[in-house]
Amino acid sequence: MHIHSVAVVGASGYSGLELTRYLARHPRLRLASLYSDRWAGEAAGDRLPLPAHAAALRYAPQAEAAALEAEIAFLATPAEVSLELAPGLLARGVRVVDVSGAFRLEDPALYPPWYGFEHRARDLLAEARYGLPELERARLREARLVANPGCYATATAMALAPLVKSGLVRAEGIAVAALSGVSGAGRRASEDYSFCEIDEDLRAYRLGRHQHVPEIEQTVRRFAGRCGPISFTPHLVPIRRGILATCALRLEGGASAADLGAAYREAYGAEPFVRLLPAEKVAVKDVVRTNRVHLGVAVDARAGTAIAVSAIDNLVKGAAGQAVQALGAAMGWDETLGLDLVGG
Amino acid sequence: MHIHSVAVVGASGYSGLELTRYLARHPRLRLASLYSDRWAGEAAGDRLPLPAHAAALRYAPQAEAAALEAEIAFLATPAEVSLELAPGLLARGVRVVDVSGAFRLEDPALYPPWYGFEHRARDLLAEARYGLPELERARLREARLVANPGCYATATAMALAPLVKSGLVRAEGIAVAALSGVSGAGRRASEDYSFCEIDEDLRAYRLGRHQHVPEIEQTVRRFAGRCGPISFTPHLVPIRRGILATCALRLEGGASAADLGAAYREAYGAEPFVRLLPAEKVAVKDVVRTNRVHLGVAVDARAGTAIAVSAIDNLVKGAAGQAVQALGAAMGWDETLGLDLVGG
Amino acid sequence: MHIHSVAVVGASGYSGLELTRYLARHPRLRLASLYSDRWAGEAAGDRLPLPAHAAALRYAPQAEAAALEAEIAFLATPAEVSLELAPGLLARGVRVVDVSGAFRLEDPALYPPWYGFEHRARDLLAEARYGLPELERARLREARLVANPGCYATATAMALAPLVKSGLVRAEGIAVAALSGVSGAGRRASEDYSFCEIDEDLRAYRLGRHQHVPEIEQTVRRFAGRCGPISFTPHLVPIRRGILATCALRLEGGASAADLGAAYREAYGAEPFVRLLPAEKVAVKDVVRTNRVHLGVAVDARAGTAIAVSAIDNLVKGAAGQAVQALGAAMGWDETLGLDLVGG
Amino acid sequence: MHIHSVAVVGASGYSGLELTRYLARHPRLRLASLYSDRWAGEAAGDRLPLPAHAAALRYAPQAEAAALEAEIAFLATPAEVSLELAPGLLARGVRVVDVSGAFRLEDPALYPPWYGFEHRARDLLAEARYGLPELERARLREARLVANPGCYATATAMALAPLVKSGLVRAEGIAVAALSGVSGAGRRASEDYSFCEIDEDLRAYRLGRHQHVPEIEQTVRRFAGRCGPISFTPHLVPIRRGILATCALRLEGGASAADLGAAYREAYGAEPFVRLLPAEKVAVKDVVRTNRVHLGVAVDARAGTAIAVSAIDNLVKGAAGQAVQALGAAMGWDETLGLDLVGG
Repeated sequence: MHIHSVAVVGASGYSGLELTRYLARHPRLRLASLYSDRWAGEAAGDRLPLPAHAAALRYAPQAEAAALEAEIAFLATPAEVSLELAPGLLARGVRVVDVSGAFRLEDPALYPPWYGFEHRARDLLAEARYGLPELERARLREARLVANPGCYATATAMALAPLVKSGLVRAEGIAVAALSGVSGAGRRASEDYSFCEIDEDLRAYRLGRHQHVPEIEQTVRRFAGRCGPISFTPHLVPIRRGILATCALRLEGGASAADLGAAYREAYGAEPFVRLLPAEKVAVKDVVRTNRVHLGVAVDARAGTAIAVSAIDNLVKGAAGQAVQALGAAMGWDETLGLDLVGG
Repeated sequence: MHIHSVAVVGASGYSGLELTRYLARHPRLRLASLYSDRWAGEAAGDRLPLPAHAAALRYAPQAEAAALEAEIAFLATPAEVSLELAPGLLARGVRVVDVSGAFRLEDPALYPPWYGFEHRARDLLAEARYGLPELERARLREARLVANPGCYATATAMALAPLVKSGLVRAEGIAVAALSGVSGAGRRASEDYSFCEIDEDLRAYRLGRHQHVPEIEQTVRRFAGRCGPISFTPHLVPIRRGILATCALRLEGGASAADLGAAYREAYGAEPFVRLLPAEKVAVKDVVRTNRVHLGVAVDARAGTAIAVSAIDNLVKGAAGQAVQALGAAMGWDETLGLDLVGG
Repeated sequence: MHIHSVAVVGASGYSGLELTRYLARHPRLRLASLYSDRWAGEAAGDRLPLPAHAAALRYAPQAEAAALEAEIAFLATPAEVSLELAPGLLARGVRVVDVSGAFRLEDPALYPPWYGFEHRARDLLAEARYGLPELERARLREARLVANPGCYATATAMALAPLVKSGLVRAEGIAVAALSGVSGAGRRASEDYSFCEIDEDLRAYRLGRHQHVPEIEQTVRRFAGRCGPISFTPHLVPIRRGILATCALRLEGGASAADLGAAYREAYGAEPFVRLLPAEKVAVKDVVRTNRVHLGVAVDARAGTAIAVSAIDNLVKGAAGQAVQALGAAMGWDETLGLDLVGG
Repeated sequence: MHIHSVAVVGASGYSGLELTRYLARHPRLRLASLYSDRWAGEAAGDRLPLPAHAAALRYAPQAEAAALEAEIAFLATPAEVSLELAPGLLARGVRVVDVSGAFRLEDPALYPPWYGFEHRARDLLAEARYGLPELERARLREARLVANPGCYATATAMALAPLVKSGLVRAEGIAVAALSGVSGAGRRASEDYSFCEIDEDLRAYRLGRHQHVPEIEQTVRRFAGRCGPISFTPHLVPIRRGILATCALRLEGGASAADLGAAYREAYGAEPFVRLLPAEKVAVKDVVRTNRVHLGVAVDARAGTAIAVSAIDNLVKGAAGQAVQALGAAMGWDETLGLDLVGG
């Protein structure tokens, strides 16, 4: 059995740390190098508990990542950095799993309004495969460039896509309130993200402007055939990890919770990482530190609404775990490989 | 200047404690008695910092509350207890401010489906005045029985009512996601509300079934003339105090955020406790421990949606502070009397 | 390779849950049965993420545990329950690892003052082996009854024992302040442990009276030859998991931090779960969800004091992980088997 | 009655914010100006809830503070800034209350080792009065320059001084473990103080090196006549506000908890802000947002130790509240003026 060598760029961010944990223990992979300016020169084992071979690795400066020697590279870097690194790595035959938003949107015209930059690598946008196996597994097979989904996009698109596809709800008028833990904002030296400012506070942010919105709509549209513009409101809440997305959809006709649940079962019944539950049983604490998605839907017949609720760990199913799963899908492996972690 | 004597029943619950703090320092009131089985016999000053006359009061058993001697009684008790106590107190000439849901809904038929009991004091339902001064001040004047609004209902109805009244949004298809701190559930000996179960967790609960729903709809309807059934999703988040309500409304025509802001200014421009802000500046930490409501609205033209965001402290504007304010409205006092507290 | 069958009694408590996670993935063990009244009849996979064979197990009522069929039983039960169950299980040839305090103290006379009961199974006290491999590994070999150490006792005794043994500090006048997360109090339906009461609070409790005190003194004495009475002050702090113990010891002569560090290196240099660090680098977040102990010592020459600081996860090295490690020591296995978890 | 004009320099830090809250409502003071670079140009009422006259004040750049026009200035600035500002203000006849450590230590020789700078204003060190009224009230009368105590120093010296003075404990061998909320570190843009790094973590820091150590020893020595070098270990815990100090002292002879309690009663029996409690009843949540000190002492006869426990709010009794109280002592006012806040 061939063991593939793998590198992580941006290894000291929260997603990079999680990737390091998972990749260091993956039975088909060998962690070959780690890149981080923050911890350049330090041993990985001084930063997190790792098996011996990975613990001995030293973080290299990010500038050296362009010359990395590995079969597979995970980029846990800002979109701008990923855009710079990916073309060269791919040209040198390195398979790339990018955790940023650099390659997620098919339509380059969406980058200026949502990301604030003109996308110049349009060929790579066309080649990239969106790494959400439960919704786009077939397209992932043998992908050379995986665009790993956003955390909010994963939680929301997985909740919405099967329901919209079922025709039991309208594709228009969807309103999503999503709550995220603070690690979703990345590792930050900022007054706004200091303990004293975040603790015991709640707020909504980027109302209607979050860059995951076109990604959600693209994903639902590819899976369900249609999707109206979604009203999406992210919230910052004082937990470290986890996302809870609550999606209000207009019922089409008199669908029951059982009807909607059947749409979920059809889409996800065989998925190892999806667990279907009554909507009020979906909770962040049950998915944190796992690659699982907990999903439920309730019907408010009086209001003509379905409420779908999903929970993920933003750093696992919303980032590092999904990246490992998507690599598995690309390589043709069992997608659960390397992802049986204990949770809690 | 006459100083009115006042009693608090249910004084050891979180709302009762806040009431005690405020009433003990109110320039027109004198705290005369406190009722609590939990702390019966203890001195109030051993439980919270109070001025001397209030600190010396001892909690009396709740069974003695029916015979309380005071001009005004605040009931911070479950609806069932309020229903038992209020008629007798009123008959004895005591003015009653009830913090429970016992007298909030005009239509007795709403009690069985939403509260689970048949309401037998229909005359009191007719007499009760809803204690939300910003929306129903005129009706509060000289009220003998004040039904203090629910915490979610306050945050939500204040965000919705002026917008619906303006006609700039539809009265149908409103979807609300509301996030509440744990004190909203009251003082509890329960595994589910233990620190280890709540901390670092998020969940939605009572989807479409929360008892504040008909209260919100009644309030919006009285103020705005109409209100479709609202989809309302409460969430439990790990903070002690505070509510953030995020309300998605369908735009009617092409209203701008400025148009909607004008509707708020018309309704609340002169209100001492309301502060209008850009929606993304509304945060729980700025209202906690105050009677203030922070309120903002954003427009997502692409999705045809307005998002209104409001923040309150569930124990102050959502309970004790509002009760003091509503008493002021009933008595014809300056409503800010006794409510200049420091916040933070 | 023989795979041993194993049962967990008290499987729904926080220690029981952690045991279930670890045992279900241990390469030499097969989880055979789980006992819990709280979740009797439910499938384990509905409560936590588990491999398939363990997920399918159903919790049985605790009353059935006396008749359990397994080679090894972990008792994550109150001391009273362990005292009832252990003799019968041992008599039937079941190896027992007890996570309670029932068998930790050699001297039966210590039970009445510290635990509040008379110990009647003195033969088992004599037979029990204390499951702290780093300090008592030799005695653990082939143990039939393992008394798993207390969480505070593990953190404290590991910090103290090598220093006292070195003679560089006095065995008298030791003062320990230990801070514990709330899971240390177990799963509780109690107002005192509710989120609203614990969050944002700090307090000391059981000053000089905590039942881990004689256990610490016994362990230090066995390892170091002597140990004066320790002043031990536990504190409750609003985190879920983790213990930080800060131990003030009187310097004997002019020992330096390097001298004291050498004593730690001699004791723990080869230990896979111990990491020696500068005292100010010891932090709970680096050990949580691992079986590791982080340990450091600083010298305050001016005050004539050494300050030793240790950090563990109270549910892992302080309970379940150490129980698995101690079983490994008893069975002659590599003690790290089944304990390579990802942390964080 | 003359109303004194007052300015706050460093008004946007956590202590400065608290000062603003208190001073804006103080019956003998009128807030005249606020200085903060962070919020220069903004209205104070946009940052915190204030009475109208204070809400209208705009923050001025700190560079303008040297020319401030007020009878009294509170400096909530770093020691270096206070050292620059104070001499000029005093020369212009402004009374100064300094919240930093710039003027706390009598002995200039202590500044280089503990604060890292040479103190050049030795005349002001001699003139400064230490603003801890409960221990040094007589010296505060008519003070022109008040050196407001440190937060740890307040909590610790108040716990130690009466016990050492009583002779019931030794003045040597005192070991203190103090736990502080994160606001004690000030408002920070720092990864180390970000929510994700602090939440769910515990650590000790500056072991034996905290700059409050000589301040504690000086205060105890002035009050009790003697004080050996103290071993002091500060800890950072994930709460926003509050300090809990646990002090281990060696008993001299066989003093009981009642004997030690009597020493506290003698020292503090008439103090309006001190509350004596059983040591296990001392908790941060009961003092937070008040100027109170809760204090208790237990005896561990077995270990020959007394454990004194004190709790304060680091921003109130540990900073802003104490500064207001000390000003009152200097001015000859009732020290509780302006400090009856609601707590909780």
